[in-house]
Amino acid sequence: MFSTEQLIKMALSEDVGTGDITTMSTVPPDSLSTATVTFKEAGVVAGLDIFALVFHILDPSLKVEFQRHDGDEVGPGTVAASVSGSSLPLLIGERVALNFLQHLSGIATLTRSYVRELPADCRAVIVDTRKTTPGWRSLEKYAVQVGGGKNHRMGLFDGVLIKDNHIKAVGSIARAVRQARQLAPHTLKIEVEVENLEDLHEACQAGADIVMLDNMEASLMKEAVEQTRRAFPGVLLEASGGIARERIAEVAATGVDFISVGALTHSAGAIDISMNIMQNE
Amino acid sequence: MFSTEQLIKMALSEDVGTGDITTMSTVPPDSLSTATVTFKEAGVVAGLDIFALVFHILDPSLKVEFQRHDGDEVGPGTVAASVSGSSLPLLIGERVALNFLQHLSGIATLTRSYVRELPADCRAVIVDTRKTTPGWRSLEKYAVQVGGGKNHRMGLFDGVLIKDNHIKAVGSIARAVRQARQLAPHTLKIEVEVENLEDLHEACQAGADIVMLDNMEASLMKEAVEQTRRAFPGVLLEASGGIARERIAEVAATGVDFISVGALTHSAGAIDISMNIMQNE
Amino acid sequence: MFSTEQLIKMALSEDVGTGDITTMSTVPPDSLSTATVTFKEAGVVAGLDIFALVFHILDPSLKVEFQRHDGDEVGPGTVAASVSGSSLPLLIGERVALNFLQHLSGIATLTRSYVRELPADCRAVIVDTRKTTPGWRSLEKYAVQVGGGKNHRMGLFDGVLIKDNHIKAVGSIARAVRQARQLAPHTLKIEVEVENLEDLHEACQAGADIVMLDNMEASLMKEAVEQTRRAFPGVLLEASGGIARERIAEVAATGVDFISVGALTHSAGAIDISMNIMQNE
Amino acid sequence: MFSTEQLIKMALSEDVGTGDITTMSTVPPDSLSTATVTFKEAGVVAGLDIFALVFHILDPSLKVEFQRHDGDEVGPGTVAASVSGSSLPLLIGERVALNFLQHLSGIATLTRSYVRELPADCRAVIVDTRKTTPGWRSLEKYAVQVGGGKNHRMGLFDGVLIKDNHIKAVGSIARAVRQARQLAPHTLKIEVEVENLEDLHEACQAGADIVMLDNMEASLMKEAVEQTRRAFPGVLLEASGGIARERIAEVAATGVDFISVGALTHSAGAIDISMNIMQNE
Amino acid sequence: MFSTEQLIKMALSEDVGTGDITTMSTVPPDSLSTATVTFKEAGVVAGLDIFALVFHILDPSLKVEFQRHDGDEVGPGTVAASVSGSSLPLLIGERVALNFLQHLSGIATLTRSYVRELPADCRAVIVDTRKTTPGWRSLEKYAVQVGGGKNHRMGLFDGVLIKDNHIKAVGSIARAVRQARQLAPHTLKIEVEVENLEDLHEACQAGADIVMLDNMEASLMKEAVEQTRRAFPGVLLEASGGIARERIAEVAATGVDFISVGALTHSAGAIDISMNIMQNE
Amino acid sequence: MFSTEQLIKMALSEDVGTGDITTMSTVPPDSLSTATVTFKEAGVVAGLDIFALVFHILDPSLKVEFQRHDGDEVGPGTVAASVSGSSLPLLIGERVALNFLQHLSGIATLTRSYVRELPADCRAVIVDTRKTTPGWRSLEKYAVQVGGGKNHRMGLFDGVLIKDNHIKAVGSIARAVRQARQLAPHTLKIEVEVENLEDLHEACQAGADIVMLDNMEASLMKEAVEQTRRAFPGVLLEASGGIARERIAEVAATGVDFISVGALTHSAGAIDISMNIMQNE
Repeated sequence: MFSTEQLIKMALSEDVGTGDITTMSTVPPDSLSTATVTFKEAGVVAGLDIFALVFHILDPSLKVEFQRHDGDEVGPGTVAASVSGSSLPLLIGERVALNFLQHLSGIATLTRSYVRELPADCRAVIVDTRKTTPGWRSLEKYAVQVGGGKNHRMGLFDGVLIKDNHIKAVGSIARAVRQARQLAPHTLKIEVEVENLEDLHEACQAGADIVMLDNMEASLMKEAVEQTRRAFPGVLLEASGGIARERIAEVAATGVDFISVGALTHSAGAIDISMNIMQNE
Repeated sequence: MFSTEQLIKMALSEDVGTGDITTMSTVPPDSLSTATVTFKEAGVVAGLDIFALVFHILDPSLKVEFQRHDGDEVGPGTVAASVSGSSLPLLIGERVALNFLQHLSGIATLTRSYVRELPADCRAVIVDTRKTTPGWRSLEKYAVQVGGGKNHRMGLFDGVLIKDNHIKAVGSIARAVRQARQLAPHTLKIEVEVENLEDLHEACQAGADIVMLDNMEASLMKEAVEQTRRAFPGVLLEASGGIARERIAEVAATGVDFISVGALTHSAGAIDISMNIMQNE
Repeated sequence: MFSTEQLIKMALSEDVGTGDITTMSTVPPDSLSTATVTFKEAGVVAGLDIFALVFHILDPSLKVEFQRHDGDEVGPGTVAASVSGSSLPLLIGERVALNFLQHLSGIATLTRSYVRELPADCRAVIVDTRKTTPGWRSLEKYAVQVGGGKNHRMGLFDGVLIKDNHIKAVGSIARAVRQARQLAPHTLKIEVEVENLEDLHEACQAGADIVMLDNMEASLMKEAVEQTRRAFPGVLLEASGGIARERIAEVAATGVDFISVGALTHSAGAIDISMNIMQNE
Repeated sequence: MFSTEQLIKMALSEDVGTGDITTMSTVPPDSLSTATVTFKEAGVVAGLDIFALVFHILDPSLKVEFQRHDGDEVGPGTVAASVSGSSLPLLIGERVALNFLQHLSGIATLTRSYVRELPADCRAVIVDTRKTTPGWRSLEKYAVQVGGGKNHRMGLFDGVLIKDNHIKAVGSIARAVRQARQLAPHTLKIEVEVENLEDLHEACQAGADIVMLDNMEASLMKEAVEQTRRAFPGVLLEASGGIARERIAEVAATGVDFISVGALTHSAGAIDISMNIMQNE
Repeated sequence: MFSTEQLIKMALSEDVGTGDITTMSTVPPDSLSTATVTFKEAGVVAGLDIFALVFHILDPSLKVEFQRHDGDEVGPGTVAASVSGSSLPLLIGERVALNFLQHLSGIATLTRSYVRELPADCRAVIVDTRKTTPGWRSLEKYAVQVGGGKNHRMGLFDGVLIKDNHIKAVGSIARAVRQARQLAPHTLKIEVEVENLEDLHEACQAGADIVMLDNMEASLMKEAVEQTRRAFPGVLLEASGGIARERIAEVAATGVDFISVGALTHSAGAIDISMNIMQNE
Repeated sequence: MFSTEQLIKMALSEDVGTGDITTMSTVPPDSLSTATVTFKEAGVVAGLDIFALVFHILDPSLKVEFQRHDGDEVGPGTVAASVSGSSLPLLIGERVALNFLQHLSGIATLTRSYVRELPADCRAVIVDTRKTTPGWRSLEKYAVQVGGGKNHRMGLFDGVLIKDNHIKAVGSIARAVRQARQLAPHTLKIEVEVENLEDLHEACQAGADIVMLDNMEASLMKEAVEQTRRAFPGVLLEASGGIARERIAEVAATGVDFISVGALTHSAGAIDISMNIMQNE
């Protein structure tokens, strides 16, 4: 709540600062313009509402219209939106609005390319991680959804994920799960990260709802899935650990429920998008 | 001022939220740990102070030490820093601190790779643009410096850059320059963006301090540089327009003063860095 | 993160405002005092850290010591903490610090009285609700824990609770559960609120992880528990709906897993606590 | 100024956080609803404007109408307000809006019950104290007014109240009053807290405008009133010190001007109020 | 509470912005300096604590020492304070710290010059008004105190001042006083602004605690004072209305209790103060 | 961006605080008024938009109309603006709105009086400094523009100004200029402060774009200008150092480009402006 607006205001503050001197000195206050937002390369559109909100915060009288919608795949040259109204705020907000749209569309586009690697009939879905750009957690996770991925927990507060260090701290997987179950609201599942079959078994035995198979070879992962489905059919399985796009199909074929990919949010390049601004006669 | 601290607090809020349930339920409050920060791939270190500040904000008693410094090129396996103190804040802040370090090191690393393309004796330097991640302007521009690049203006407030739309709005390059000169503090230079030699000439004539040569072929750019050096020796020239890394040497050879590259900040992937946390006996 | 500090600053601002005129005009700046914090009535201590934080924010040189700890049951006359240092901040912060401690101890005390009603061998635990004092969610839920209760979800973001209106909006319980499962991170369980056995059955069938039995008579609730344990042994059951303290034992006897009680946070009176301030010679 | 809006935003942030997953996954964005706000028990209505402001902040297009007004005494089943518009914000804001209304109506209801104890022809009015819920000072004092009480000073800044510790710090009541008079704006009265007739006399002599009679028996208080009316007719008298509702009539009969009651704000339970939401066809 | 720190942060943000380029590029990070703060003209020192706080916020390790204190009258060339420590924050904060000190010392100096005009044995004191620089209310009122003046109410919340428009709105002075008495906390006095003897009489009759004599000739004011002392000895009288320094003695001679002067805060020029910075060897 | 709104909110908070008791108790909520804003003395209007924004923030339904515009010179008795709408916010915001308008008009008026001293055909313009009221940088610099002056750099971030301490820190003017050129964005000019002809020469030689002639006699300044125009025709020259209004013509006659005057912003008195509020029948 309110964090998107806060980020937009930070972005406008850092870019506009004490004022857009160029525009203020050259563009008459009563000038009106219309701008079109064009994708210069193919991609998945994401962030149109944020794009519009930037202009709305600068000047609520600007009118933003969408020709495409979040989730649409568009080719180069596609006009995705248009903005019309007073030239001053339109020129002042152009760069910030595009920076949001380019970054989010970049994430949605990258996510879509991972999702496409999934075999048609597989159980697995692509999920994101907490490796997001600081300040952008909600927005980037939204872009992952737009791209066809699913969100893992939003942060440390809405999911329990017991890792190596936690287990060492309490002494055993069983005790870690028990203590987490006691403190965590009963609306949260307990996930345990494991690297071998012994720990997987111990985690399931301890009552884990989800087990993360970290950095496993596909063959070992397959074995893990089979054992778990037999002995603990209710347990969900997540593959994790720097899984490259080329490996998605192979990992999905092991039968896991989720494949988490940090790159979706920490290494997506921006999509090239430009605004064409025409002053009205 | 204060915006870095604000971004760190936003990042901690969005990740920790109402609490790190896993850590709170498994790690005893009096547990002490030491962690090492290891680069998993080669890169240029950037953001160690921010990394340390994240932990300082969480718990001022945590001790962060640097084994490497911003700007250092490191290979995979290099330990760049270590953190020691109470296990709770150390585990709670791990992800956020790494997210900052990974993103900034990614930008420094990418910048360094562009800088390396510059011929030894050329005049040109690599500069960044305003295509930065919203909320991150100052930090990302800092990482560009660390990588060996130079900063263009920080925003719309500390430089004048007259583009097509501004020129159309006032009627001519000459008038745009004159009006900007009148409004802008006399500490600011005036830059004009042009796409051909006629406009270049008009901009220099009008008294522009800098001219941006946008989207020009190398041959045209060379002609532009030569003409300008002859007729307007005091004018600085900047090459711009989606210049790929492969073209840097060619563009630098034209004799321009600056080559601006948006990709430095909008499309750098994260460097893979991890923290190894060991609880003290 | 940071919200407790924010609430304390709001509290100090609203009380101190432009300054404590009385204290500023009567107490010399170099005066030193020691104060003891005494429970005037029996209760469960909760909020000592917040109490100390109020003084720490006013003046980090004030020293706060605890004679009792959060969770302790104390009788009238018990000294729970002491504060020593400069008289000015001590007098200025007294009321705000006590207001926090009194409110949180009130909630812990009330919660403890509910927890005591649980039969020794029952499965049920007392949980709180979202009926908290606006601005106080985290603190009040902490006090419930201190009192021996367990927290339900912290808010709308870390748990799914499908109620009547949601079901009507999508058309059926089954569809509501399916859509929630699709959007929610896989770390979250799905809870459905029902008022009769038909809906209970449908919810379990649809894959609900938890079912809330709202406003049921004990006999019906007992029937609900029995049917569910037989047919859907993995499903958790929560009793809800204005359950008075007198009914806790009866409800617990039905075999439910959780009994949620809004009164814990919306209707706990303050515990009477006072500070005795003695100026040092 | 602005603090109410700040508290509402804190309340929405802590409840909605990263999003109401249940509602977002089940309710279509174009769904419209109408809701009625019903008192489930008798009480005094207080906080309708705040209730409406919560929804206005979430979505300014929601329409809130009042069927009752702040200060009205209503019986169980009374519809006090209605809200109509988009179902999403209506469902998302329901709990927060009710939490405000329930808490403030609880305070107004409790205050009214104290005010009712005052004899018809007495001089005394019921006033509140600074024992309010941190963050809620202005709102709770408003609810006291709605209930028929009067506000004491809002904080340490808009009134002088010299207590035991202040007197000890300067050496005498006379000196405390003199110094406070010197520093305080001349728009503020000086109040002195006393526990016996000697101090009362000294305070009046020193020029106190108001004297607080703390923890006195009714008989002693009566004596105090009589002596003061004779010798210092301009001095106002306030009774204080954990005065229970049953003692109000007796205390009022002593002739004091004000009876201050901390319980009004620190121990009022919430009034049970619910929202009935009906989706439009 | 906290507003001074907020103003300092705003001041540093607006001056330092994205960084002090000059200092960052010329001064080595390990350079140490000592600076002396010298009054270039005579004046009353005010604001040393704020001056020190600016540097403390920039770098808590900077050491500020005071050679003079707030309220001291100093001649040109007087060293009032010194700062030592790291050169970077010292140079970066210099201008902001001086801007605070110069402005507040200017107000204290002007106030002192008004206070000096008061006849030795008069009853009147000089008080300020609400005509302060927005954002600076508390600081400027503090400087007035330092200069020897007294504060009027801090704002609209800690005093009642009934003016012409309020009287017209309710119909009569008597009714205005009665309604204000009813709503205002009993710790506040009621002041009424009048322009003639009829209204003065009506205000006293209505129970006003203070009457402001606005824009009256000295002779009329004298008459007003005499009548009031006779008939309403408890009522305080305040002279107001653009009273120039030359008229202070004359107005004081009428016997009023307070003379309020807006110029103290809205028209005081800065005192010329400079910092001499010497880098340590 | 957003800092003006922030300052207005601070101003309203400090003045209105917990409420305008006088107005709330005397003016009916449905009362409507119209107010006229009258200059009581001659001056240059500045700040009408801020004036209007104060009322807009309090109540967007208030209607503000301008009879004069920023930059107009008006005589006593001129009505510059009018406000109409609900009496409550109109009365509550009156003082704050006027405080802004009075201060900014004071600066514009003082600036205009300096500008008038410039000989008709001179090259010089009057510029401001960083000696502004903390929190007011942008607003005060705007008022200088309105008065006919020009702005120097906004802060430490949008211009390089090398002073004595910077030169000492690096060892020489030449090195200071070189290092600043390296770090500063190429959109910024480099200014060097000098006190004699030797340093002036060295600065020009080092490539300074602007030289500030600090505290020079007019004759020396003339010599400095002549030498510079001959040898370094592209270098701009700025006169500085407590230049009184009486000296403006003399300094302008030396041929400098800029005359910077700190007094414009640190010592301008407020213009007397009042609001006449008439309640509608």
